[in-house]
Parts: sequence; C-alpha cells; structure tokens
Amino acid sequence: MVGRMREIVVIGVGAGDPEQVTMQAVSALNRVDVFFVLDKGEVKQELVDLREEILRRYAKDKEYRVVVGRDPERDRSSSAYVEAVDDWRRRRADVCAELIASNLGEGQVAAFLVWGDPSLYDSTLAILDDILARRELEFGVEVIPGISSVSTLAARHRVGLNQVGRPIQITTGRRLAKAWPEDVDDVVVMLDAQTAFTEHLGQDADIYWGAYLGTPDELLISGPLREVAPEIEKVRAEARDRKGWIMDTYLLRRHRPDA
Amino acid sequence: MVGRMREIVVIGVGAGDPEQVTMQAVSALNRVDVFFVLDKGEVKQELVDLREEILRRYAKDKEYRVVVGRDPERDRSSSAYVEAVDDWRRRRADVCAELIASNLGEGQVAAFLVWGDPSLYDSTLAILDDILARRELEFGVEVIPGISSVSTLAARHRVGLNQVGRPIQITTGRRLAKAWPEDVDDVVVMLDAQTAFTEHLGQDADIYWGAYLGTPDELLISGPLREVAPEIEKVRAEARDRKGWIMDTYLLRRHRPDA
Repeated sequence: MVGRMREIVVIGVGAGDPEQVTMQAVSALNRVDVFFVLDKGEVKQELVDLREEILRRYAKDKEYRVVVGRDPERDRSSSAYVEAVDDWRRRRADVCAELIASNLGEGQVAAFLVWGDPSLYDSTLAILDDILARRELEFGVEVIPGISSVSTLAARHRVGLNQVGRPIQITTGRRLAKAWPEDVDDVVVMLDAQTAFTEHLGQDADIYWGAYLGTPDELLISGPLREVAPEIEKVRAEARDRKGWIMDTYLLRRHRPDA
Repeated sequence: MVGRMREIVVIGVGAGDPEQVTMQAVSALNRVDVFFVLDKGEVKQELVDLREEILRRYAKDKEYRVVVGRDPERDRSSSAYVEAVDDWRRRRADVCAELIASNLGEGQVAAFLVWGDPSLYDSTLAILDDILARRELEFGVEVIPGISSVSTLAARHRVGLNQVGRPIQITTGRRLAKAWPEDVDDVVVMLDAQTAFTEHLGQDADIYWGAYLGTPDELLISGPLREVAPEIEKVRAEARDRKGWIMDTYLLRRHRPDA
C-alpha cells in the first residue's frame, strides 16, 4: 500500500510587516499540521515574536504544532565562503531531515515560514532538495511566494528598481566590496555585513537604504551616495548596537553620463 | 487655507492570482475613492476581468468609482527604444494628470492597480513623478508592494533565483538578445517579445519558463536550455495565437564549470 503523501509548504511571509502576508499564504497557514522552526541560538526575540504574531493572527482554522530544531552554527571565520555555506547547509539538512522524519506523519502538512520571498537568498528550498536527493524521505514541496525585502525597500522609497529598458543586478555585499558589477547601473545589495557601499563613494550614484523593513523599527535613508554614506554608517551602527542585530538592504542607482 | 491632501496609492496586486493579494493591499483597496484604469485599446479582456474580480472580492468596505483613461499608443516601430518609451510615458503622464485633475477631490484617495510589483518594469511611479515635477498638481504617493511574476516563476518551479553567494540579474529580452550579461550565471528575463533565449543555445544552462503565471492558463516548462527551447517556442507561439496575447518570464541558470 502506498502511504498518503507528506507535504511541505515553504511560505514566504513578507519582509516583517504581518500585513504583507498574502491571501494564498493565509490559506496555506491554515492547512499546516506542524510548523518547523530553526532556532538561531543568537536569539532575535523580535523575529520570534513576529512569527508568533503571524500564526496568532492568521492560522486560526486548525490546531497546529510548532517544533523547534537547533540551527547549526555557521563557520563565519572561513575564507572559503561557498564551502562554509555548503557545509552549513548539509548540517542544516541533517537537522531538517530529523525534524521531518520525527514529526511529519503520512498525509500531514508541514511548513517552513521564510522571511521575505523564498526565492531570494534563502536556503530552505536547497535544503529540501538536498534531503530529497538522499532518497530516505519522500514528500511533496509547494512554495508560496512572499513580498521580498527588495520590493519593500523600493515601495518605501517609492522608486522603481530599474530604469527604462535597463537591467538590475541583485548581489551580496561581499561581491560589491570587490567591484561594481559590469554593465549595470542599478544594483540591489542584500546580506551586506560590511557596508560595501563605502567602497564606491567615487561613483556618481544615489543610494536608497532601508533596515528592519516593514517593522516598527524601520529605518530609511536616501540621497546622493557620497553625501549620505556617513549618515547611513552611523545610523546602522547605532541601530545594530541598540537592537543587537540588523537586517538591511539597499539600492545603488548610478547616474548615466548620457542620461 | 490649505486644502486637504490628495493621495494616490499604487497597489501591487500580484502576478495574476487574486489570492496573491496581500492584507496590506486589501486595506488599501478599501480606502480608495476612485480607481484609475488605463485602457490598452488592444483589449486583454481576461486582465480586465481579473482586475474586476480583485475589486469585487476585496474592496467591500466602501463605495468607489472606476475611471478609465485612454492609454496612448506606443511607437513600437522606433529603433530608439528609450526615446520611444520616454515619449510614451510623457503622453501617459498627460492622460493620468487629466484623470487626477478631473476626478480626485481634496482629501480623497485614488489608486492605480499594478500587476506584479510596482518596482519591476512598471511605469506608474515614473509617471507620477513626472506629473509632480510639473508642479500643477499636488498629491501624496504611497506604494504597496506586490508579488512579482519573478517571485511567482521561482515559486512555481520551486527554485531559488540565486546560487549561494552569487548575483542575479533581471533584464529584458532586448538586452539578452545582444549578449549574456557579464559575470552572472543566473539571469531573469522580463519583457521578451522575441524569445531571446534562443540566442544562447550554446550555453550550458537550464531554463525555467512560465507564462500567464498565477492564472488558470499558467504554462510552465523547465529543463536543459538546448533540449527544451524548441518546446517553449512552440508552446509560446500556440498560446499567443490562441489567446491573442502572452505575458511570460524565465530564469536562465548557467552551470558553472567549477561547480
């Protein structure tokens, strides 16, 4: 006899404002038997509270369980970034496989809630692919797209990400620190721990910066890069000290000589 | 005496599935006195129906008007793409300024509904900036981010847009037809009328293609670019003939030699 399918829904819940949750996400939340949460150790209590608020507000039609797994430490000292992330993903996959094997019964639905959109710099889908590739567990995967921090940044600054007929590059602080991308004037930077924009003060560019987007602590600064960069550095450092963590993103828009 | 502020909300309503509307968008829809719609002439009746369905389903708390303006024709024969778009935007701004001047009273709220996310290849925000720059009308602007067709594409194919620590470029078919972007393996293409992916069959890449995303007519094809490109061309041409229009997008993911 074939067992009834297990299902895992990866639900994008927006950048931080519970109002950014979609109708589709609400429907999905109400089909879930068990929510899996990876505890980051370094407790960002506000994010835990926000996630609980989302469940309290929207997951009302059904009883559910929340099961917390221990998120493995990532080796941030390694210079081999990709290898360090690969290793971390493998250990995360071990933790998630164990969560699924122990807590997801036949015919049941589990969910991972993802901040922003599951398609942008999030490892959940890659981890589920890893687990499926091991062929020890079987489950279906559904993805509910969410409002990304990138869309939120643009909305809060009331700007488009692209200029007419022009491309946009989404990249990391690590890469931007090395070089401005080729042939692109509009660059969105995520995962920037080192304020890589300060490497490009020679560019004739504007910056649209945001932190804690969609939350009551949201910070927004925009203007000519050279002028506002020191302010962003200062505000960013103060906020990180005050709250113990920061999540920020920004758009750099270079002026085109012929525009 | 200072008049009460006029307000325009630009609301992202998702890629086509009314369930992709966010809670924030629903709140905004219910504050609106007048919805402005630009009639495209070439009638995509399904999009009109979809928009009406969204209003019927969610804008329930308040009476509202819908005012339709005539969308100016765009000169698609011109080889000067940016100039043609600039000219078209100026004429669109004329139409929108007239809609606002004639239909938005003091203290009232107007809205433009935007498919996908207002920050990605949409001209509404630029048009409102144009109108404000003329200094003949005053109004506040608020933007509600939406689920983009890009996020929807990734979700439906259950893939991430980026690889670990790597950038993503979002670009147009016109640009991709000329060259694969520098230093980027993951390329999302929007606004491609000419199936520009066929210019890159020599690349060792996968393609994740989708059309009419989020609607009942959704089409999805993925696989090695060289193998599935003919199928995509065929399915795309048939669908466009059958429905009279097509909206599609795709992700190209090049395999890295060292990966």
